[in-house]
Amino acid sequence: MAFPNSVRLVEVGPRDGLQNEPEPIQTATKLELIDRLGAAGLAHIEAASFVSPKWVPQMADHREVMQGLKRREGIVYSALTPNLKGLEAALECGVEEVAVFGAASESFSQKNINCSVAESLARFAPVLERAKEANVRVRGYVSCVLGCPYEGEIAPAKVAEVSKALYAMGCYEISLGDTIGTGTPLKAKRMLEAVAKDVPMAQLAAHFHDTYGQALANLYAVLEEGVAVIDSSVAGLGGCPYAKGASGNVASEDVVYLLQGLGIDTGIDLDKLADTGSWITQAIGRPNRSKVGVALAAQ
Amino acid sequence: MAFPNSVRLVEVGPRDGLQNEPEPIQTATKLELIDRLGAAGLAHIEAASFVSPKWVPQMADHREVMQGLKRREGIVYSALTPNLKGLEAALECGVEEVAVFGAASESFSQKNINCSVAESLARFAPVLERAKEANVRVRGYVSCVLGCPYEGEIAPAKVAEVSKALYAMGCYEISLGDTIGTGTPLKAKRMLEAVAKDVPMAQLAAHFHDTYGQALANLYAVLEEGVAVIDSSVAGLGGCPYAKGASGNVASEDVVYLLQGLGIDTGIDLDKLADTGSWITQAIGRPNRSKVGVALAAQ
Repeated sequence: MAFPNSVRLVEVGPRDGLQNEPEPIQTATKLELIDRLGAAGLAHIEAASFVSPKWVPQMADHREVMQGLKRREGIVYSALTPNLKGLEAALECGVEEVAVFGAASESFSQKNINCSVAESLARFAPVLERAKEANVRVRGYVSCVLGCPYEGEIAPAKVAEVSKALYAMGCYEISLGDTIGTGTPLKAKRMLEAVAKDVPMAQLAAHFHDTYGQALANLYAVLEEGVAVIDSSVAGLGGCPYAKGASGNVASEDVVYLLQGLGIDTGIDLDKLADTGSWITQAIGRPNRSKVGVALAAQ
Repeated sequence: MAFPNSVRLVEVGPRDGLQNEPEPIQTATKLELIDRLGAAGLAHIEAASFVSPKWVPQMADHREVMQGLKRREGIVYSALTPNLKGLEAALECGVEEVAVFGAASESFSQKNINCSVAESLARFAPVLERAKEANVRVRGYVSCVLGCPYEGEIAPAKVAEVSKALYAMGCYEISLGDTIGTGTPLKAKRMLEAVAKDVPMAQLAAHFHDTYGQALANLYAVLEEGVAVIDSSVAGLGGCPYAKGASGNVASEDVVYLLQGLGIDTGIDLDKLADTGSWITQAIGRPNRSKVGVALAAQ
């Protein structure tokens, strides 16, 4: 058991959260959200996704967001770029970090991005090459690491294989996504141990969803293993596209509260973060899925 | 790290849950809830509270509940009895197990039961004597073990002191309550370690609230220490009297899902339990606070 001294949070609310909203959110609201998150101390904010508006209309304003955001010193504003076209557009907007997303499940890869896992990796190769040329870091997402909505169980070896491939291609960090939130702590530990044989622990991030309420327990378990990067979404923005009305991303506020209780530094002002969660959920008319946010607001 | 092979759940929804409802629930609904919980495999159900209807009108039908419930083989139906009068009434209804409730916080004891911690223990002495005579087991609750709404931090030594006193007086099990849900995993571990010096681990139960979303992480942490009894409430019934709109008791469904994932036996049928949670929340018009319940219902 060796907890990290500090943990970096990657705030995915403006992207992973808002892309699951039924209707696109106004660009000005997104920009204010990103700015408030930065003011609360989030040092890494995933701001947009350069995918086709045909597939993800919620992210159609990616240029306006990336160009409109008020950059704060020391904060990374990243964007999803599934292909070369998306990357070129993101580079035009001055992006300094991008991300590609693969899956540990063949069925999920086919249904989500219309190709096999191997094909997806082949598609990412030119993205990684071009990003390197442009001196832009690339993060790699692996989805379905603790279960797939189509296949059910996913072998840790499969997660390790995809993670290793992305790392070998040049991704500086691999974010391990429990996309449907079905994982439990020992399963999360075993998956992580399998991946950590191929990718250094310092290059791994936990991206856990709270659909079955297990996210914080799972995070606690992988923190015990030494994971020091956690993806989360303010107010738990996003919900779960695979279970209507259920929770998606773990709430940033709840993660920060956990980390503070464990004596782990995050550099985040929890009150400001909770205020941001209250504000955005009111602004877009959504329930606040952060229990810390609700409890603090009720005080 | 030594997880227990099996965990006993103590279902507190009909009592701790429903006593926090703004209006009393119909006796027939309570009886159906208790029966459904038994059918789902809950082997220990806290069914009623023999307190004055003046203080807790939600539990005014304690006699009707205790006498009306359809007893199932192998299930313990217990009741809260804060004093001798309550105990005598419960005994008349054929109760086989009762519980007394103390606090690890002086301020909470004063505000909640109008006496000091020492005075509360003195009041419990005749209850325990009479229960022993009647061959009825007594469970002891200790509230505020990880924080107090009036005092804030509570020293683990204080929790240990009260727990030890209740155990010495004859309580067969001490249930450690994070009444306001502010605890985090390491704090929970340290508190438990302090108590376990005075009371055997096998005689300790974790009663954690989810107000700050930490309950499952805290439970995972104390399971690692060997705790094998967990209190929970179907659908997270109850809410938090100290933070309006916030969560109270951890949801039984979410605890069972965690335990199943850890390979720990509970004897509970999760689908039946989740159905019970859906049913009772619809019957009383409350949100279902079990994430597992919501996710399963959305499938």
